[in-house]
Amino acid sequence: MSEYIENDPQGISVGLVEKRFFTFAEPPHGMVLECGTRLGPITLAYETYGTFKGNNAVLILHALSGDSHAAGYYSPEDPKPGWWDMMVGPGKGIDTDKYFVICPNILGSCMGSTGPSSIIPKGDRAYGLDFPVVTIGDMVMAQKKLLDYLGINKLLSVIGGSIGGMQVLEWAVRYPEMITSAIPLATTTKHSALAIAFNEVARQSIMADPNWNGGDYYSGAKPSLGLAVARMIGHITYLSDESMRLKFGRRLQDKNDFSYNFDADFQVESYLRYQGTKFVERFDANSFLYITKAADYFDLGLQHGDGSTVRAFSKTRAKFLVVSFTSDWLYPTYQSKAIVRALKKNGIDVSFCEIEAEWGHDAFLLPSERLTALIKGFLDRVYREI
Amino acid sequence: MSEYIENDPQGISVGLVEKRFFTFAEPPHGMVLECGTRLGPITLAYETYGTFKGNNAVLILHALSGDSHAAGYYSPEDPKPGWWDMMVGPGKGIDTDKYFVICPNILGSCMGSTGPSSIIPKGDRAYGLDFPVVTIGDMVMAQKKLLDYLGINKLLSVIGGSIGGMQVLEWAVRYPEMITSAIPLATTTKHSALAIAFNEVARQSIMADPNWNGGDYYSGAKPSLGLAVARMIGHITYLSDESMRLKFGRRLQDKNDFSYNFDADFQVESYLRYQGTKFVERFDANSFLYITKAADYFDLGLQHGDGSTVRAFSKTRAKFLVVSFTSDWLYPTYQSKAIVRALKKNGIDVSFCEIEAEWGHDAFLLPSERLTALIKGFLDRVYREI
Repeated sequence: MSEYIENDPQGISVGLVEKRFFTFAEPPHGMVLECGTRLGPITLAYETYGTFKGNNAVLILHALSGDSHAAGYYSPEDPKPGWWDMMVGPGKGIDTDKYFVICPNILGSCMGSTGPSSIIPKGDRAYGLDFPVVTIGDMVMAQKKLLDYLGINKLLSVIGGSIGGMQVLEWAVRYPEMITSAIPLATTTKHSALAIAFNEVARQSIMADPNWNGGDYYSGAKPSLGLAVARMIGHITYLSDESMRLKFGRRLQDKNDFSYNFDADFQVESYLRYQGTKFVERFDANSFLYITKAADYFDLGLQHGDGSTVRAFSKTRAKFLVVSFTSDWLYPTYQSKAIVRALKKNGIDVSFCEIEAEWGHDAFLLPSERLTALIKGFLDRVYREI
Repeated sequence: MSEYIENDPQGISVGLVEKRFFTFAEPPHGMVLECGTRLGPITLAYETYGTFKGNNAVLILHALSGDSHAAGYYSPEDPKPGWWDMMVGPGKGIDTDKYFVICPNILGSCMGSTGPSSIIPKGDRAYGLDFPVVTIGDMVMAQKKLLDYLGINKLLSVIGGSIGGMQVLEWAVRYPEMITSAIPLATTTKHSALAIAFNEVARQSIMADPNWNGGDYYSGAKPSLGLAVARMIGHITYLSDESMRLKFGRRLQDKNDFSYNFDADFQVESYLRYQGTKFVERFDANSFLYITKAADYFDLGLQHGDGSTVRAFSKTRAKFLVVSFTSDWLYPTYQSKAIVRALKKNGIDVSFCEIEAEWGHDAFLLPSERLTALIKGFLDRVYREI
């Protein structure tokens, strides 16, 4: 049952939730990362919703700038719920009356888990660039430790979009015996040159900010201008030509004529400036560098199948629901179809849906009856069949 | 006849050429710009190739970072010819044995024409942000003054791609009696929200560089890092998903493994960094701001047809060749088709061709037998029919 939340009068959220922390890999052992470095201790922030019944655990994995707060409210006065509250809650697509949901913040982030902004063990400063370059594989290895700690050795499903979807694929390949089903949304087995290009320009924008200072800025001014531009670049890739036309077109900000200066004349300019400014208040520039680099490095076929995605999935037995969105030009449908083909060649039970959506890559985070029904139906079937 | 050029042993270029300068609009009169400000004096750098015979003048208009040097060499030791040398020369698509070609550098640029890096009249410093915001219309008005000075009152054709294509459209609408034919390539009557978004992020990147200093940097360090990132953003928009896949894919720079740091691992990263670095040596950051703003402001229908592109073309009598490229996602084919429809509704003789090209928006600047044949055939027909 949900508690009463002021901003959620229908009581359809999971109610009040709490961020928890799990720390492991204490030195001198640490966790050996894919780059060969030992990292420890490692803390993962995480949240859970619903009740664990042994066979009903669903792992949600967030994208670049997400966090462990997928659903619910931290306090009755909290102005807004978690980032996927429309999908996660009682009776929702991922029904917390039936399933036990776990959402960890990824390794390398800045939302409670260990990352470049964390303090070095027994040190008096943040890691900065002394933080090792982590991979999608490292993030998933750390998540496995969390599940071990929680006593979960089988997942009914693992779900995520974008970089979260990469982690879904990595889970299905790295720990095939643990995964009953997998739902990768708007994702890819490897970044295209275009996706790498966007990430690289965003990183260059951060590193061009003198305040970035080689990653060592935690005791001084932050590289906010560089990070804001990086986020603006990201926001362009999350939308689409069509969605921008619908959302903004050439509408002017709040006047009937051009400013004839370098203010924001068009609404799309104000939108991007606002998104950039808002982002720097909550996100760490170095985490942006590390997580985008992890996404660029991700290559499921290369890392698990000697270059073949088909071989990478050879031990995978999970049922799959693969979803792409028509206007997503960051991870276009052809990339999801490549996942589907590789799964089918392994005889895996896979459903695929390309959802008509005008909102580009962002579509997987927006309310969609279609997506909700798909996920709900798929999870119900998987849960019935176990 | 072409002179002998060391690097052009076949002698198929226009040979040695010279940059010329035309200055007009001396104060106190100046030229009244669309923003209402008077600007003067104005200098336009320009080059000409071939011999003027009264009815054979072809005006070439360059894009964002171009200049007056469309063809030929400045000296026998010049390592490379002008930016459109493959199209402009004896026997080429724009045949300088037949046509008299004029290519001016646009107002607001930094390649010899008056722009923000020019010295204020009777002042001792560059304009910087005191330079007025110029429009595509202003650029074209200045070009008209140049043609008046050269004694040219009729153009056989006006040709240009991208922002050069916008000037072509503006010419055809603003001075319809002067234009026998027009060839807008890979262009649009108005920027989409997506195109504005890319320009705005690039501008923000420049303005976020502390060296930019409100546009006042000509006596100190330049905002090179910000301009490099801006150029990198541009280069992403000039290519396409497909062209990047073909050109770079996920190939690594010069090693077989990841660096696990923030060096350029992938070839596409090195390419972008190189393009950014190279650009800052030759281009002025403020000119980048002004020219992209002019392109964002451009709206042919709004400015000349009370919101209707059809009405904007109502006095146009030129024959048109409109060309788009399949993989151009900055100015996609649907935008060229909108130009064609508006022209046809005015009963204008218009040929349209969408060229199959993998190279994105950049395609109009790359060697293409198809494009060369199209332009050559169209100009020949127009020249025969006058």
